[in-house]
Amino acid sequence: MIEDAYKRLQGHARKTPLLSSPFLDEISGRRVFVKAECLQHTGSFKFRGAWNAISTLTEEEKAREVLALSSGNHAQGIAAAAKAHGVKATVLMPSDAPTVKIENTRFLGANVVTYDRATQDRDEVAAKMLEEKGYTLIHPFNNPKVIGGQGTVGLEIAEQADEFGINDAEVLVPCGGGGLMSGVATALEARKPKFKVRPVEPEGFDDVTRSLATGKLLANEKTSGSICDAIMTPCAGDLTFPIIQKLCGSGIVVSDEDALRAMALAFKRLRIVIEPGGAVALAAALFHANKINSETVICVASGGNTDPDVFQRALALDQSSLG
Amino acid sequence: MIEDAYKRLQGHARKTPLLSSPFLDEISGRRVFVKAECLQHTGSFKFRGAWNAISTLTEEEKAREVLALSSGNHAQGIAAAAKAHGVKATVLMPSDAPTVKIENTRFLGANVVTYDRATQDRDEVAAKMLEEKGYTLIHPFNNPKVIGGQGTVGLEIAEQADEFGINDAEVLVPCGGGGLMSGVATALEARKPKFKVRPVEPEGFDDVTRSLATGKLLANEKTSGSICDAIMTPCAGDLTFPIIQKLCGSGIVVSDEDALRAMALAFKRLRIVIEPGGAVALAAALFHANKINSETVICVASGGNTDPDVFQRALALDQSSLG
Repeated sequence: MIEDAYKRLQGHARKTPLLSSPFLDEISGRRVFVKAECLQHTGSFKFRGAWNAISTLTEEEKAREVLALSSGNHAQGIAAAAKAHGVKATVLMPSDAPTVKIENTRFLGANVVTYDRATQDRDEVAAKMLEEKGYTLIHPFNNPKVIGGQGTVGLEIAEQADEFGINDAEVLVPCGGGGLMSGVATALEARKPKFKVRPVEPEGFDDVTRSLATGKLLANEKTSGSICDAIMTPCAGDLTFPIIQKLCGSGIVVSDEDALRAMALAFKRLRIVIEPGGAVALAAALFHANKINSETVICVASGGNTDPDVFQRALALDQSSLG
Repeated sequence: MIEDAYKRLQGHARKTPLLSSPFLDEISGRRVFVKAECLQHTGSFKFRGAWNAISTLTEEEKAREVLALSSGNHAQGIAAAAKAHGVKATVLMPSDAPTVKIENTRFLGANVVTYDRATQDRDEVAAKMLEEKGYTLIHPFNNPKVIGGQGTVGLEIAEQADEFGINDAEVLVPCGGGGLMSGVATALEARKPKFKVRPVEPEGFDDVTRSLATGKLLANEKTSGSICDAIMTPCAGDLTFPIIQKLCGSGIVVSDEDALRAMALAFKRLRIVIEPGGAVALAAALFHANKINSETVICVASGGNTDPDVFQRALALDQSSLG
């Protein structure tokens, strides 16, 4: 399924680089690699799953407008992939999504509908929209084609690990609904069975970490309140969680400030822009090094769509304390 | 010479991606590609020439310490390449170089000596150091091995142009002493004879643009005063200028504010960090579009080592005016 997605993405998705810096190695006390999905089209890995899902729709499904639910990165992926396939798209996004995400989605030709993350339930709003108009729904993570597309990140990591001579590693993945997690874990189970894939989540939104610890699918209590807007998903999916439970190691939880510090270090040492939710894996590698056991860690930097004011907060951190 | 350098760099330098965004295309009114050398090891293309120069030194030259003159990027390239080859390195840098450049060079194991850009002549200070100690000098641009290494950027552009189906393009290159310019122009003359390579310089430091216009090798009057620290070189070299004169199209001059705006757009649309001197080519493509004739423009983003305060100035620009 992931291999098929990889073929479909050839010539459309970018093979993003695996970056490193001796400065980051020194902070973590091991080799640190960063899979820079912030350099993917539309600024996040979501383009992969969106392309795979839209390119495999039937003509009848394409003729109907697609509907996507998204905090903003799936929205952009869907908008770009839909445009390339001549499909109309509407996306339902929280009203407090970063400006850059809303703007980009509109620029890419999608119709944007917003809801209030604190007072409205996304699934209810979506159900009503689906009832009123016969959209083709493309769920952001609980969709096999989306998981398959995101899994191509894992295939590329396996290829690049061979190039760098990496035989054993922990692979840290920012985790919201688990589409990227489950796809990457499935790909690496086949290609690099010695790699251990682990989720990283922000404080207060550690549903998957708790679910893995207890063996039960738990949800977050809050629906807003972290700067990691991309991964505040209420709960993993009934497709994604069983895969994560079977294949992944324990979760790591980081603070918003950890994410900001990781963004500042990625600016300074890798010259890339990561958004808060995309920086949590690198934050875990750098600031929770004692929770990692392998000599090599590969961190997925899942997205880079952040507003200037948030990036300025990261840059304003005391540079001398960053390492 | 460039092909030999390319072989030597295999497995050491990164093949940097050629990025694009529909937003940038819209601003420029043509297809815009960015060769992201800010993602190279040590954050600039300079690593290529430094690696090529150091790896081809004789054992006797390696046994002596190498001396590099640099505004900061050649310094880091030399420091990293020297360390990997077990060679000791001293670099002479202006005292007002960005903190990140001085820090990184020291971290990479080189001995840093500074001079005052406004009151001291770099070549005189270097001559005295060479006299006092028998260093092996590696000039930042007027050195065939350095030019050969930088030329590998041109080989990669040719390969990537084929992947993207680009047959005709102007290639804009930030120009200081002309090492990158002359290397890229030489590579593309052989591989893509229809491409036109053109220098871009900051206002007040447009020596190459004026030299091309008059047919005489001219120098800049000022030695400081632009934020584009990487390309305030007083004058092109007697090796680089004849190549530029033979192979390159006319120069484009941009303001410091143009460079900052290009940095902000690269942040927002490409998720990469470019330093001011590395952003001038993209600035020309975006804000001097009327000086470009081709339907496709390829801009080299030559480096990304900038201090947070400078980047914050870029981010503080009115975002709504950026496009």
